[in-house]
Formats: sequence, structure tokens, C-alpha cells
Amino acid sequence: MKLHIITTGGTIDKIYFDAKSDYQVGAPVIGELLQRMGVQFAYSVESAMRKDSLDMTDADRALIRRAAMQCEERWVLITHGTDGMVATARALQDIPGKCIVLTGALQPAAFAQSDAIFNIGCAIGALQSKPPGVYIAMNGEVFDADKVVKNTAANRFEALDSA
Amino acid sequence: MKLHIITTGGTIDKIYFDAKSDYQVGAPVIGELLQRMGVQFAYSVESAMRKDSLDMTDADRALIRRAAMQCEERWVLITHGTDGMVATARALQDIPGKCIVLTGALQPAAFAQSDAIFNIGCAIGALQSKPPGVYIAMNGEVFDADKVVKNTAANRFEALDSA
Amino acid sequence: MKLHIITTGGTIDKIYFDAKSDYQVGAPVIGELLQRMGVQFAYSVESAMRKDSLDMTDADRALIRRAAMQCEERWVLITHGTDGMVATARALQDIPGKCIVLTGALQPAAFAQSDAIFNIGCAIGALQSKPPGVYIAMNGEVFDADKVVKNTAANRFEALDSA
Amino acid sequence: MKLHIITTGGTIDKIYFDAKSDYQVGAPVIGELLQRMGVQFAYSVESAMRKDSLDMTDADRALIRRAAMQCEERWVLITHGTDGMVATARALQDIPGKCIVLTGALQPAAFAQSDAIFNIGCAIGALQSKPPGVYIAMNGEVFDADKVVKNTAANRFEALDSA
Repeated sequence: MKLHIITTGGTIDKIYFDAKSDYQVGAPVIGELLQRMGVQFAYSVESAMRKDSLDMTDADRALIRRAAMQCEERWVLITHGTDGMVATARALQDIPGKCIVLTGALQPAAFAQSDAIFNIGCAIGALQSKPPGVYIAMNGEVFDADKVVKNTAANRFEALDSA
Repeated sequence: MKLHIITTGGTIDKIYFDAKSDYQVGAPVIGELLQRMGVQFAYSVESAMRKDSLDMTDADRALIRRAAMQCEERWVLITHGTDGMVATARALQDIPGKCIVLTGALQPAAFAQSDAIFNIGCAIGALQSKPPGVYIAMNGEVFDADKVVKNTAANRFEALDSA
Repeated sequence: MKLHIITTGGTIDKIYFDAKSDYQVGAPVIGELLQRMGVQFAYSVESAMRKDSLDMTDADRALIRRAAMQCEERWVLITHGTDGMVATARALQDIPGKCIVLTGALQPAAFAQSDAIFNIGCAIGALQSKPPGVYIAMNGEVFDADKVVKNTAANRFEALDSA
Repeated sequence: MKLHIITTGGTIDKIYFDAKSDYQVGAPVIGELLQRMGVQFAYSVESAMRKDSLDMTDADRALIRRAAMQCEERWVLITHGTDGMVATARALQDIPGKCIVLTGALQPAAFAQSDAIFNIGCAIGALQSKPPGVYIAMNGEVFDADKVVKNTAANRFEALDSA
């Protein structure tokens, strides 16, 4: 597997600035995480944008779709804010021959108890195993792009029929 | 997915006793990890043994095989020491209708930089996506049970043909 | 040493809410931290308020002063936001017979790389060793309350004469 | 304060080798920890030995005493295994004009829940505050070298009279 990773921002990359008493989207963390985990496969990382997914526009999604289509790799991992993840997943459907998995985190990767590294693991496990298509890997589950919603009140992802 | 988890010991569960200046295999950590990660699917945890995998015998492997066959769940995750993981994976082949993934850690889950939670994520992502069979999820890759070795010198898992 | 701890909020207690893509001051973390560190001395924890220290008023500082005076313990540890820490330290001067140390964190205690536990350690080491007075323990140094400033641009505490 | 740090090994520096399923004393971690904590004062680090303190001899203690006497700094921090820490502290008494604090950890610094960074904080807070002498900072307390024991059964340090 040669993997292409597109980072777009979101909670997973949030860091804390004390001077402003504020969180901001920082540099993508996934490259460092994968290195620390000792992965052996080849991967490239492309930072497409650094946005809270609530602020994502149709133009942003078109840009992400272009990036996913144009990269030469068959396997594409996208790190993304959780609020707009389902909308982006749907905007990525019907790209022939590619297996695309979106993931992110409900707690910033910088937190000791973050779900980031688990979700990335889950996404990478799914990428190697799924037929071409678009999937979301969150809360330990691998959802089809058109069968998942974020339950905002409960702060988790759920299959559409169980929502 | 309803998941059955069989824990057998290994580095992933190692803890440190200062009084003896020594480590020991402790209680299985996976239940607590999955809870912290906010997984929504149902799972059960069965502690089959607490062994360094270097000490595993054929009888131990027979016991693990029985546990994997007899549980009612179709999806089985096994946490295991890394040294004997490939041998156990091979002893589990040809169980009809079950998707079995073995994983573990090169650094104890108690370490801040452990690969445990990433490997478990990778195993869970693969479990939901693979056809029935036996797999090993380590170093970010999902290997077929009969096509993987542990490269002890480099301390990582590799596909058989690249070893 | 019997220690009284007054918590007031600040970065040290900040947690992250994904639903709002925002952080908030959460419950005080110090009790759990001290337990995890295996301290043997007796201590009590009083949550005086949960505020960003930029929002602290003279009335808040009067309340903290009252709490520090009225507790029966001679040793008082105050966890506090970093922006208003120096102002609060000065408002606590001239309480006879008490050794008071303020500390906090530049990164929330929930972050893997937080300075919280180090700063609390430093404060507790100073508390047992200093004569009565008011001190700030930050960045590995124990400052007299009237000889310290926060260098906001550099995001650290410095002795007044070196600023 | 200009601080000299002498590292001697012990649990604080233990790392895990999967290949041997064993812990070993690794490179001293304190320099990296202090950098991460954002300390502003100057310090130098000297690795005197890398030993489990159970293996320390009189010759080792003489070497540590020489290092503490000969360094030009007035403040000396020694990281040390916990089993022989009290014996070394006693071997360091009566060095005129120096404030020496020994500390270590009951859990390796590499563990997420280690007491290492807290103990180092406590030692550094005490160093700046105590008169010349030899002290042990463990379990959140600063003990005089001649009034402390390690309670091995309970795995903690205690004042001699309370033991």
C-alpha cells in the first residue's frame, strides 16, 4: 500500500495558545503520529487547508475532491473536522478506483486521552481491506459515506438507520 | 458488529513493579482503552491467559483456538505477545465463518508513546472490512496469517516476501 | 505538612468541547493528579471559582484572600490562570504565618505535553521549604510575589529585574 | 539559579526493549523533560553512571560525591534509583555550601502515568528554597537525608519517625 494523506484541519489538529486563551488549528499532526507508530508503508502528506469543518464551503470540498482524484495513489486518507465530515464524504463519492477513508478526532490529538491515534489506526486498517469507495472511520466503526450521520448532541457518529 | 475479544498477555499488558525492578503481564488493558475511545459497538472481553508469548505452548494455542471457535461472535480480536503472534495466527486458520485479527504492541500500552491504541484501531478497522480469515494487524499493516513474519532484529512485522 | 488547595480555574483546568468547537474551564484536576502521583501528606481541595484569570475582578481576589486567611492550614496552594496570577499573588501579601504558592499551567493539564504536573510539583516542593510569604512557581522557578511578571509575548514568567 | 544535574540511572530512565522482553536503563530523560517544561534557568547535565540502584557500590557513591563536590554550581539535582537513594543521600552529607536534592521515580518516565516529572518539579522547587544540605524529594515530600526511609512493601518514601 502506498497511501496519500490529505489534511484539512479540524479538531484533530487543534492546539492551544495561552496568550489568547484560545484553541487554533495547528500544523497537521498525522505525519508525526505515523512515524511514532512505526508504520512501514510509504505515505505522502498534503495539507489542503486548515479549517474548522463548520467553516467549510462547497469550494473547499471541490478542492478536496480534486486533490483525491489527482493524486496517483489508490488509497487516500483524509483528516477532517467532525462537523462537516459527512458532507465532505458525500462530495467525494463516485471517484473510480479509489478507496477513500475520512477520519478525525473528537478530542485534539495533543490531549493525552484523545481518540485521534485510534481513529487513524481504524481508518488505515479499513483502507487496506475495503473495496473502492468512500468511508468514514470514527468511534471504532467504518461507515459507508451515505449511511452515517454525526449525532451532535451525543458527540458521536452513528449509522443512519440507528440515528 | 458484535466483537469478541480474547486477551492472552504479551507486551501490550505489561506493567512495571518497582519493588522488584521488574515488569509483569498485568490485567488486560483493552476494555479500558475501548471505553476511553468512545466505541459504540458491543463487545465482550475474555482473558484466556496472561503470558509472554515466548512462553506459549501448543496447549495454549489449542485453548485460544477453542475460545475463538466457541464464541458466538463472528468477529474476534486477539491481543497477543508479538514474538509468538505469527505461530498463533497460523494455529487459528480454517475456522469457518470467522474473521479473526491478532494484534499487540511493541511498547506496553502504559507507555506514553505506545503503539497499542493505534494497533487496536487498525485491527478493528480491518475486522469490519475483511472477509473471513485470520489476519495480523501490526505496524499499520493488515497481513494474512500465512504471509507475515516478525523481523526480530528490526523489531517489526513484515510481509513474508519482503523479509 | 497539611496542605489546603484553592482552585480558581485557568488554563490548567481547561477541557475541550467538540460540539461547540470550544474549550471551557472544567472541574479542578489537581485532586486527581496528586492521587496519581502517590502523595502521602493530607490535603483538602476548595473550588473557589472557575474563571479565566483575564476575567477576574477585585471581588474575586478578595474572595480568594479570605479563603486563604480563613483555612486552618498553614500551607496554601492556589491553582490559577496565568494572565492574572501576579495580580492575585500581590493581593495575597501580608497574611501572617502562611506560606502561599500560586501555580498554574501554560498548557491544559489534559494535554500530553502539559506543564501542569511539573508546576504543581515545583509549587509543593517550594511550599515545604520556604518561610511564610507569597510565591509564584512557574517555569521551574519560585518567584517572590512582588518580583515577578508574566512576559505575555514570550508566554513565560520572569523575574522583574530580568524582564 | 544555575543548576547542575547528575544522573545515575534507576527506574526513572528505564525503557523497554521488546526484542528481549526486558526493561533496561536508557539514556537520561531529564534534559528533554526540562526543555519540554519550558524552564528558563541554566542547567548542565552529567551522566555519572546508568545503574539500577540495587547494584550501586561504595565506589559508585564515592564517585557521585566527588561529582557533587567538584561541580562549580551551588545547586545539585541527582536522579537516582529509589532502592539505594537513601544510602546515597547519606553518603553525600557534609558537603559545605551545596544544596543537593535527590529524586527519581517509582514508574519509568516513559509511562503515561509516571511520577517522574512531578518528582523533578518537587525537587527543583525545594532546591531553590532550602538551606544548604542534602534532601530527598519523593511522593510530594522533601525529606532531610537522615530522616527518611523507603518503605519497600508499600513502595513509597516515609519520614523515619512515621515508618
